[in-house]
Amino acid sequence: MRRNAERMRERCRALGLRLRPHVKTHKTLEGAELATGGTRRGIVVSTLAEARFFAAGGFDDILYAYPLAGGRLAECAALAQRLQTFQLLLDSPQALALLQQHPLPGTKRWLVWLKLDCGNGRAGVRPADPAALALARAIAEGAPEKVTLVGVYAHCGDTYGCRDIPAVQAIARATATAVLDFVTVLRQAGVPCPQASIGSTPSCSHPVPEMAQLTELHPGNYLFYDLQQTLLGSCHPEEVAIRVLTRVIGHYPHRNQLLVDCGWAALSLHGRDQAPTGCAAIEGHPQLRLVGLTQEHGQVEAVDGQLDFGRFPLGSILALIPFHACATAAMHPVYYVHAGGKVVELWHPVRGW
Amino acid sequence: MRRNAERMRERCRALGLRLRPHVKTHKTLEGAELATGGTRRGIVVSTLAEARFFAAGGFDDILYAYPLAGGRLAECAALAQRLQTFQLLLDSPQALALLQQHPLPGTKRWLVWLKLDCGNGRAGVRPADPAALALARAIAEGAPEKVTLVGVYAHCGDTYGCRDIPAVQAIARATATAVLDFVTVLRQAGVPCPQASIGSTPSCSHPVPEMAQLTELHPGNYLFYDLQQTLLGSCHPEEVAIRVLTRVIGHYPHRNQLLVDCGWAALSLHGRDQAPTGCAAIEGHPQLRLVGLTQEHGQVEAVDGQLDFGRFPLGSILALIPFHACATAAMHPVYYVHAGGKVVELWHPVRGW
Repeated sequence: MRRNAERMRERCRALGLRLRPHVKTHKTLEGAELATGGTRRGIVVSTLAEARFFAAGGFDDILYAYPLAGGRLAECAALAQRLQTFQLLLDSPQALALLQQHPLPGTKRWLVWLKLDCGNGRAGVRPADPAALALARAIAEGAPEKVTLVGVYAHCGDTYGCRDIPAVQAIARATATAVLDFVTVLRQAGVPCPQASIGSTPSCSHPVPEMAQLTELHPGNYLFYDLQQTLLGSCHPEEVAIRVLTRVIGHYPHRNQLLVDCGWAALSLHGRDQAPTGCAAIEGHPQLRLVGLTQEHGQVEAVDGQLDFGRFPLGSILALIPFHACATAAMHPVYYVHAGGKVVELWHPVRGW
Repeated sequence: MRRNAERMRERCRALGLRLRPHVKTHKTLEGAELATGGTRRGIVVSTLAEARFFAAGGFDDILYAYPLAGGRLAECAALAQRLQTFQLLLDSPQALALLQQHPLPGTKRWLVWLKLDCGNGRAGVRPADPAALALARAIAEGAPEKVTLVGVYAHCGDTYGCRDIPAVQAIARATATAVLDFVTVLRQAGVPCPQASIGSTPSCSHPVPEMAQLTELHPGNYLFYDLQQTLLGSCHPEEVAIRVLTRVIGHYPHRNQLLVDCGWAALSLHGRDQAPTGCAAIEGHPQLRLVGLTQEHGQVEAVDGQLDFGRFPLGSILALIPFHACATAAMHPVYYVHAGGKVVELWHPVRGW
């Protein structure tokens, strides 16, 4: 994890960009401390529970990169008051109106990023849509004493549909270009927009030169990586820094299966139909695959041929490399952090919203 | 939830059976209090974390219905010492040897259920396999002053692959018959086995007469029910006692989609490819379906035709009926319990292992 954190920081240094790590994968103070290189400044969160947890843990410059919902404005105002820099994201005139109608007290202003959808097809306005320029202008010029436009933000989550690095890089290039072209349009329109940020672990693990023109990157998963990222080419298998340990609890030779004490309650069902070995790879045992997960049981088979039960006596431990670290981490109330073969720390993630 | 608890208790009373509710779906003291009709006696758990939590909450007669793993024997011994009745399950001679080699101190004995696999294909010995009788005999006769055979236990989880009630009942009948035939074999062999228990919410929601010859049923999901159970015919839609509330946070007319603030972090991915409306049904809106879930976002579309965005203004609340309550409940650190339109209690489930 330290190495993954350091490599991403080096990559951003080389590009002359700031790294604003997303914390939603691990959701721990310790992980974010590593990811920020100890500064505890400049992170992205996706829930207000995360924002409060990291604020209470001494973090600042927190971007709540999630479409603003009216019902949660009071919580955002409390965070803006508490922190030196609390930033919001929006993609609709309604959300902007809400901020303008509820200014922060004193000299504080709402700090706003405009969310762009550059092909990912989730939240955001499409930069080529005239509504995008209109909204950026409305943020910057509508009530400048109340609301400030900080930057534009895009998530290239469509990289997860890729099958190789060139395809990931093509999306990264298209996203960066669309964001930068939009910033040019803003500049030409006289709309100040100092920051431009894109993210996703696949794109940030193999950045393209066009990304150097942005100001920030905001990947999150890379701190752990996972089987999915390995299949996408984001990392080598030995860079994956997350495992679920499980015990063999049953031998069923008549159906050529082992049972292990790890079900979806410990792994999630992510990747079930996407990876050749199921929701996880079994470290050191490429001849095995997870074929079934119920709440607390996992069924393990041989990829082909007869399972060698003698190699896996009852009680033996297998290490599972999860398909999707974000999903697996979300199932665990504590992470066992090890170094030199010993558990050296327990990390407790925040949950809820 | 009260009604679901009461109906299952009535069903068991009518059959002359004890209800031993499984608590792994809700994992709360309050839910188990309802399910046991206030007695706090006679439950099934699937993790030792649950066993300790319910023991600390005043529950007793707890069956840890999970293949015994050697590494966890000390925790089991502590529970056996702490509780009047702590029961274990096993399906291998190795697990039995472990118990015989580590007897409980004083006059306590290990209380053991033999796990049978009557077609479900997960844990358990197949009752027609000569190893089943041999293992039952070894439990009962091997070291009777240390280990007692309490009963036989089967989970007919294969009912979840059914498409209608007759198919569920056929499996329930086959499972009950296989268990009872095995008990007969034991009796003929002079092996005392006082209890026989089967479970699964589909089978226990429409019990067949053969089940009356058992001594216990151990369903768990029925306290909530869910979309999956509705599709299986286990319950009517209005009996489902779990919802995830979510807000509309975005309108995207160009792709005919709403965005809601509920992703897999709040719902899980269970049912993604199994239910016509995705991982949940949207209550009161059969014309909508959830087409995509990322960690904190859900994408909602019209089943066909154009979405009427005017009906779903930003900030409006939708109630999601989860496909799989066990999986959705596992994503939440707290349940908001309501009555008469008001939140009246917060329930906190146990997690971990």
